[in-house]
Amino acid sequence: MLLDQIHSPSDLKHLSVEQLTTLSEEIRQFLIESLAVTGGHFGSNLGVVELTLALHQIFESPKDKIIWDVGHQAYVHKILTGRKHLFPTLRKYKGMSGFPKRGESEHDMFDVGHASTSISAAVGYAVGRDMSGEDHKVVAVIGDGAMTGGMAFEALNHAGHVKTDMVVVLNDNEMSIAPNVGAISSYLTKLRVDPHYSSFKKEVSHLLHKVGGDIGDKAAKVLERAKDSFKYFMVPGILFEEFGFTYLGPIDGHDLPTLLKYLKQARNTKGPVLLHVITQKGKGYAVAADAPDKMHAVNKGFNVQPGDAPKVVKVKAAPPQYTKVFGDTLTEMAKENENIVAITAAMPSGTGLSKFADAYPKRFYDVGIAEQHAATFAAGLACAGKKPVLSLYSTFLQRAYDQTIHDICIQNLPVVFAIDRAGLVGADGETHQGAFDVSYLRIIPNMAIMMPKDENELRHMLHTAVHYDKGPIAVRYPRGEGRGVEMDTELKRLPIGKSETVRDGKDLAILAFGPIIETAERAAELLAEEGIEARVINLRFVKPLDGEMLMELAQQNMPIVTLEEGAVAGGVGSAVLEFYAQNRVTNINLFPLGLPDQFIEHGTPEELRDSVGLNVDTLVEYVKTMVPLKQKRA
Amino acid sequence: MLLDQIHSPSDLKHLSVEQLTTLSEEIRQFLIESLAVTGGHFGSNLGVVELTLALHQIFESPKDKIIWDVGHQAYVHKILTGRKHLFPTLRKYKGMSGFPKRGESEHDMFDVGHASTSISAAVGYAVGRDMSGEDHKVVAVIGDGAMTGGMAFEALNHAGHVKTDMVVVLNDNEMSIAPNVGAISSYLTKLRVDPHYSSFKKEVSHLLHKVGGDIGDKAAKVLERAKDSFKYFMVPGILFEEFGFTYLGPIDGHDLPTLLKYLKQARNTKGPVLLHVITQKGKGYAVAADAPDKMHAVNKGFNVQPGDAPKVVKVKAAPPQYTKVFGDTLTEMAKENENIVAITAAMPSGTGLSKFADAYPKRFYDVGIAEQHAATFAAGLACAGKKPVLSLYSTFLQRAYDQTIHDICIQNLPVVFAIDRAGLVGADGETHQGAFDVSYLRIIPNMAIMMPKDENELRHMLHTAVHYDKGPIAVRYPRGEGRGVEMDTELKRLPIGKSETVRDGKDLAILAFGPIIETAERAAELLAEEGIEARVINLRFVKPLDGEMLMELAQQNMPIVTLEEGAVAGGVGSAVLEFYAQNRVTNINLFPLGLPDQFIEHGTPEELRDSVGLNVDTLVEYVKTMVPLKQKRA
Repeated sequence: MLLDQIHSPSDLKHLSVEQLTTLSEEIRQFLIESLAVTGGHFGSNLGVVELTLALHQIFESPKDKIIWDVGHQAYVHKILTGRKHLFPTLRKYKGMSGFPKRGESEHDMFDVGHASTSISAAVGYAVGRDMSGEDHKVVAVIGDGAMTGGMAFEALNHAGHVKTDMVVVLNDNEMSIAPNVGAISSYLTKLRVDPHYSSFKKEVSHLLHKVGGDIGDKAAKVLERAKDSFKYFMVPGILFEEFGFTYLGPIDGHDLPTLLKYLKQARNTKGPVLLHVITQKGKGYAVAADAPDKMHAVNKGFNVQPGDAPKVVKVKAAPPQYTKVFGDTLTEMAKENENIVAITAAMPSGTGLSKFADAYPKRFYDVGIAEQHAATFAAGLACAGKKPVLSLYSTFLQRAYDQTIHDICIQNLPVVFAIDRAGLVGADGETHQGAFDVSYLRIIPNMAIMMPKDENELRHMLHTAVHYDKGPIAVRYPRGEGRGVEMDTELKRLPIGKSETVRDGKDLAILAFGPIIETAERAAELLAEEGIEARVINLRFVKPLDGEMLMELAQQNMPIVTLEEGAVAGGVGSAVLEFYAQNRVTNINLFPLGLPDQFIEHGTPEELRDSVGLNVDTLVEYVKTMVPLKQKRA
Repeated sequence: MLLDQIHSPSDLKHLSVEQLTTLSEEIRQFLIESLAVTGGHFGSNLGVVELTLALHQIFESPKDKIIWDVGHQAYVHKILTGRKHLFPTLRKYKGMSGFPKRGESEHDMFDVGHASTSISAAVGYAVGRDMSGEDHKVVAVIGDGAMTGGMAFEALNHAGHVKTDMVVVLNDNEMSIAPNVGAISSYLTKLRVDPHYSSFKKEVSHLLHKVGGDIGDKAAKVLERAKDSFKYFMVPGILFEEFGFTYLGPIDGHDLPTLLKYLKQARNTKGPVLLHVITQKGKGYAVAADAPDKMHAVNKGFNVQPGDAPKVVKVKAAPPQYTKVFGDTLTEMAKENENIVAITAAMPSGTGLSKFADAYPKRFYDVGIAEQHAATFAAGLACAGKKPVLSLYSTFLQRAYDQTIHDICIQNLPVVFAIDRAGLVGADGETHQGAFDVSYLRIIPNMAIMMPKDENELRHMLHTAVHYDKGPIAVRYPRGEGRGVEMDTELKRLPIGKSETVRDGKDLAILAFGPIIETAERAAELLAEEGIEARVINLRFVKPLDGEMLMELAQQNMPIVTLEEGAVAGGVGSAVLEFYAQNRVTNINLFPLGLPDQFIEHGTPEELRDSVGLNVDTLVEYVKTMVPLKQKRA
């Protein structure tokens, strides 16, 4: 295998186009076989095989800086930069990350996971280079989906102003994760589908030349005046040209000779260049190419025979995912409440809203990768008397933080935040863990925040949220399956700011926020065997807190453990401590158990919980230090 | 006066152009006289007198929704909507806000203060209207500066996709607050300065028609094919057209007949329309028009005689502003450290960086209103070995929250955050108070956060930050003047995570974060008179905390008050409580004094502090409840 001889990008330098083509086939086969075992991002990587090969032949990594946007398409880059042998460990605990990581390789220039950052990072690298008088190249590779993010626009605007040498490769696969939305997308489609754009350019130029001779002075004058204006006529990527970029393309991203030629041209062009490359997500694997959203990321165990439908290994009938319960419940509620509007930022399927979108297309808005707009759009809808439900992943809501404060909470607008992927998400690692939302949301005045103990309670919380008209309210819930509980058919409103005691006990109280209450319940069982009676409380609301319950615990001098799958810093425990301090209750013995003050890497949620001691054992041990050990039960 | 007869927009409906012109003069005179007394945003309001009159004649507020971006240009709107009599209370405590406020008038559609939100809000309003089957108009008025913000782009992209009826008025004064930057700005300039854009359109159309006849089939074929492409040739606002907007203009924003005509046309056009209006900031007041950045906002007491230089009332030689100390110190350090790069988002003067920009133009980057890009650009610079100093206001840093987490802190990059306007800012109110930065930053792993007790310590903290290479570090400092202390000429590095005891005492400890330590010192004096000896500690770092000092306090059983000008929720007190809880120190008697869980309105910082009890009296009273009262000194 040729691929076995590639240990670094320098091994590609002298390969012929034929050899690169062979390599591309070997890489595809390797990816398919490898991901069939480990799972991982699939379609996006199959789509950039030729592009990555061409980038590494034309540019000299790590001297030249290749910066990947989002980064889930960097597997081929990882293969070519000496990490092929690590693929069996892909996205596994202590194994290779699914994203570029500076700590992992000198060829990884910028840690990433969220979309739309690469152009900003590239401008930074390029300006730094210029300051140092160095002469390497800087390349950002960004998808068309990520181009809808506002910060990509901010970066284009600044790059066009700074006019430094840099290349932006627009990897246009007509998808973000779901099919793309927005005017930008239509624009790119226009560039893609009109083959005349390029040849037309020459013809018009010729025609105008001829006209100049035919009708003399007047035309010449007009032509003279036109100058810049003619650019509009002749340049297909006018939008990018307006930003001060030289636009090249669009070109076929699976045609190696063309890629090599244009990348070379881009490399040698002064100032900022945008090279528009058309790729096909899932290229080379029929099923992935046909259903790119379904095959965006795969679980292990699909069939490796290209052309076959993927066979996902199913172990048993599992409880429904929280995401699905959210989507189904919202769809159910929308039937009776025609004010409900669902909003997502490029995650219709990921947030469980596909069913809602089918049932109520006019009340469903996928705004693209544009969380900031999504939040303020929701605020506008609320002003207009609607009930917007803004469904975002915890980690992506960070993008709309100012909008949450400035546009929703200051105006105290009744927007419902449906925060998915709250807590540990697993294989996606640092950039995707939903660790901070409780801490950054609970400090905002007017905000109410809930988390259900199970998938059934999620339904009631959604119902509660949609009927809450006093201001913004958030329901956060984790990635993955529910706890397999009975589902109520009738929805009920939960009292705002009230907790629920699920197990009584007099020795200490465990205040659990969310499904992690299961850990508390199991700990309580173990503690009971040792004679310690733990009260287990389902907190339900971290804001407003259940003050009555908390004062009761204080009166009873109960030691307290708060339990949450979120950062301890600023989290639930912190909120409870503040409550007591502000209410002048001293002598509190509280231990806050949650995520430590560090970014949590990738691995299964279980591995990660164990790695930070967020589990039954730790909980039991802490309790034993807080409560005097009693005689064991007979 | 005609103006005295205007109590609501309906009073404008039947006025002639002549009457509106008279009114515009009266309004300008009123603004100049009124702001000379109260201070306030000046230039931006003088610039939109005719535009606001025309908007309120053509549209029917409040049925039609007029949404102001940023909102500091809404004074004329306030005058015309029955609030003229409130101008003596402008931006004063319990008086009229300097921004639109839904609570203040039915004509204020969306609370605002930050830039770039109006198009998103307008899309929300428009979609809500369509859902309800109503037929009113929705208008967003946005400045060219705000157009550089990523969320404006996200909103344009979505609006072009949704294709609902709405009007975006681009109020182009070639300024945000400072002169504008970026490719978008160059683009708008091109539209503005080229008079051929409009007339040329007709001529070319004519010419092409003629050509068609002259050279027959081939041309016809090319012309046929061209179709969409010709749009590039003939439409000046092609960038906006690409987004799916109908572009009208540019027109003179001080020419009432033209404004009325085009606004009417915009109102009657289907789908999203962008009307490009050129205005002059400070129009009608020579000094303001000539120095628009200086006259963006004015203090009271300038001379009302148009043409005269403003005479700002100066009471005495005041201590330097923190902002100035920051700018001067950074400039001083940049001389020796050529890696220092200063970054601002449209606030070169507001952040005190003008001097730096003059001295080191190649190491100064104003990225426009684009905080997200600013942060990730800084991350890229840090990767390239530079020392970026990102200078933003506390409240605007909220815009770059995800970038701070995802691009700076996960990679643990040594970016310096210079956070200006931290704490209460005064007259700008809710949207501008720097209340949350400690709470939302300290929960991010790898972040270090300082606040100086005075302007001299700010210098040392900056020096410390620039020499700190372990990761990101923030220095926050307030708006306004320093405390008038001696300034050291030599800069020194402060030990990371170490506090400073400024007054000893054995009865309790006051842990102060920032210049508010003055309140602690004064309280300690008063308490001493009653025999209570308060230790006053200058915390310096809220992260990492001074664990040694905190453990010592615990060993001494000291009651503790934490004192900060920031939200108590998640703030300094919360951090200290967490520290003790995690270190299993129980029986802590701590009271966290800071800003309560509410948005703080406008007023002077002193009035606001008193209104929430963040002052010497409250502090003394709380201490007395915590420490048994002793015999008074003889």
